Amino acid sequence: MRILLTIEYDGTDYCGWQIQPNGKTVEEEIETALFRLTGEKISVTGSGRTDSGVHAAGQTAHFDTQSKIPSERFSYALNSLLPKDIRIVSSVEVPQTFHARFSAKKKTYRYSMYVSNTEKPLKERYAAEIYPLPDIEKMKKICGLLIGEHDFKCFSSSGSEVKSTIRTVYSAEITSNGEDIAFIVSGNGFLYNMVRIMAGTLLSAGYGKLSEADILTALTSGDRTKAGKTMEAKGLCLMKVEYKGYNY
Amino acid sequence: MRILLTIEYDGTDYCGWQIQPNGKTVEEEIETALFRLTGEKISVTGSGRTDSGVHAAGQTAHFDTQSKIPSERFSYALNSLLPKDIRIVSSVEVPQTFHARFSAKKKTYRYSMYVSNTEKPLKERYAAEIYPLPDIEKMKKICGLLIGEHDFKCFSSSGSEVKSTIRTVYSAEITSNGEDIAFIVSGNGFLYNMVRIMAGTLLSAGYGKLSEADILTALTSGDRTKAGKTMEAKGLCLMKVEYKGYNY
Repeated sequence: MRILLTIEYDGTDYCGWQIQPNGKTVEEEIETALFRLTGEKISVTGSGRTDSGVHAAGQTAHFDTQSKIPSERFSYALNSLLPKDIRIVSSVEVPQTFHARFSAKKKTYRYSMYVSNTEKPLKERYAAEIYPLPDIEKMKKICGLLIGEHDFKCFSSSGSEVKSTIRTVYSAEITSNGEDIAFIVSGNGFLYNMVRIMAGTLLSAGYGKLSEADILTALTSGDRTKAGKTMEAKGLCLMKVEYKGYNY
Repeated sequence: MRILLTIEYDGTDYCGWQIQPNGKTVEEEIETALFRLTGEKISVTGSGRTDSGVHAAGQTAHFDTQSKIPSERFSYALNSLLPKDIRIVSSVEVPQTFHARFSAKKKTYRYSMYVSNTEKPLKERYAAEIYPLPDIEKMKKICGLLIGEHDFKCFSSSGSEVKSTIRTVYSAEITSNGEDIAFIVSGNGFLYNMVRIMAGTLLSAGYGKLSEADILTALTSGDRTKAGKTMEAKGLCLMKVEYKGYNY
């Protein structure tokens, strides 16, 4: 049977999602736990990678197993074997035609910042420190430019190889209480570092370093150097992955 | 000169505020940094202790120094010597008559909980996991009983020695978004474990295990066993210490 996991993790101590030779990863921890649980060498397929230090509240991944363990018991069983900074939120059986990555229709990310001129130990782990307070209204305006189908090449790290850099952003918004600022964005897919570069670009706009016209130029030119900087990993969190026709 | 520090710390990796023979403490880290900075063996006096694992967004402490470093430079200088989970938010000169503990007029604590039947790695560090959702309206009602001057003996851990168990609570409130619940309480002082026991008592009320009448009985009897359990340390955060006549 094929099982879909929804996973929350604190990425601070991991070299990202995907297994790699040096350093522990979330995928590896889950595969190790699955091996201990079932005795099978199981390979899990995530909805996508998350980079070193990036967090997830709702990463998803599927795997196939011959195990007789009821699908909904996998979450409890795996949680007893996993480190505390990785938790399986749910485990459900899905059809063999379901694929965590290819069936995904919508992903939502959140980029968190806090305004302070000193590092705040209680916020440092999950948000980027910025100072001073940017112009929130300007940032909200730029969000409007990002919504829709666009070539987002200027918002992707150079060197990443993809067939197409066209993606659709369904929603993009900024929330702020004057101290904590979040950029929440949903789309049908995201290029490498796209959310972190979007957040950096919004911040440049909020500080008056990039105008609306500058950002439109960046979008049409596809020139990475015309967009803002790539914000640090720790502020990023993969919130949700949604599947058409499924409600997991 | 006498200097007042305002300090934020993530208490996860510390055995509380006060210096003790076994395990590192926040006070010790600050005194070590002060020694490295000034060459003086300086003893700092906190507004009060925080227990092992308890956090602070606004702990305060004073110390005396012969140093010629301008008072406001201490924060920057100390931050370059302190571990990242302790930050000096500000440093200001205060009169010799000022005392971080005895001059304190008001303290505010926050106790954070989150509703989930699985541990959430992104919330675990700063909040206690509870399940299911308690009755928030009932909890708000109980908050009303706590406000004012009362003998709070039933909300203090047995074995603690204090002259009087009478304290004044200025405000007590519950905030909730259905997932994150916080109990925020201000008073002229707090007994040992008082906020954690109050939070446990509010939760018992929210789950229908203690009625308003039960809590009034607990208050008048002074009987610790009639109040709720002591909630875990990690949900507690000392938010603010205020001084009459001073605005630091």
